[in-house]
Amino acid sequence: MLTRNLLSVNVPCLRGFSSAAASFLRTGDTLKLSRIFTSEDVLEYSKVSHDSNPLHFDSESARNAGFEDRLVHGMLVAALFPKIISSHFPGAIYVSQSLHFRLPVYIGEEIVGEVEATNIREQKNRYLVKFKTACFKNGAIVIDGEAMAILPAPAVEQANTSA
Amino acid sequence: MLTRNLLSVNVPCLRGFSSAAASFLRTGDTLKLSRIFTSEDVLEYSKVSHDSNPLHFDSESARNAGFEDRLVHGMLVAALFPKIISSHFPGAIYVSQSLHFRLPVYIGEEIVGEVEATNIREQKNRYLVKFKTACFKNGAIVIDGEAMAILPAPAVEQANTSA
Repeated sequence: MLTRNLLSVNVPCLRGFSSAAASFLRTGDTLKLSRIFTSEDVLEYSKVSHDSNPLHFDSESARNAGFEDRLVHGMLVAALFPKIISSHFPGAIYVSQSLHFRLPVYIGEEIVGEVEATNIREQKNRYLVKFKTACFKNGAIVIDGEAMAILPAPAVEQANTSA
Repeated sequence: MLTRNLLSVNVPCLRGFSSAAASFLRTGDTLKLSRIFTSEDVLEYSKVSHDSNPLHFDSESARNAGFEDRLVHGMLVAALFPKIISSHFPGAIYVSQSLHFRLPVYIGEEIVGEVEATNIREQKNRYLVKFKTACFKNGAIVIDGEAMAILPAPAVEQANTSA
């Protein structure tokens, strides 16, 4: 596997990336973004998703269920994955996502989301890309899984054509 | 497989269900909920997820990508699954979710989310439940996959103990 430098959306111009311009991607490239979820994020996500599970709003319920405090919604944390992909590749079409929720995410914790391109396949002038996806806190995996997305050309430069 | 009546969150008191009280579940039970996503939902979800892919805001970009119009975020539609589970089983802990995005969801379309309990396993006085999950529009699958969740006792009454 071709491994290159870790890319970060905190350095949007690295390798010519910009939010609107064409970007390119090779197998092994990793994109990452960190975020700290706030109490307001949990409230706003609950409003738009209509998900008002007490684990997200009632610290006592969360503690009774074995957690330290109330939780950030796992699906909100997982939204980091399409956010990362679409911010690098505007117009990306999400095809699939698997999610394993390994550890709780609490309000105020710094979460680092990472997506790594593991397979790139050309398909009718677009690119079908498989990503390994994971979120971490303090180096420990909180969510992992895989995603597939269709990226618009010329978003992708295949590793084997440039090697 | 034991098949019973379709349950709907539109009928919250069916079989003694209430939003806060203990509910029970057997293999084969299906819970469903319909929702129409609005332009405001897309805007609010974008704000909280930080996902501003032009496919969700720019009809022309969406048409250029082969869609009829701009799309509702797939992860917002998929949030129907934990919403359905947690509204029946407050305190439910999400373990995993797989998602295959099969068809686009447009603003104003009626989407029906369904979760069907396919396996129920007791685990330390809780229940680990596997669900088949799907969203439909006009009878066609728009998202499908599987979820696992831990439901607090006495949420579950196992089919084989009551059969």
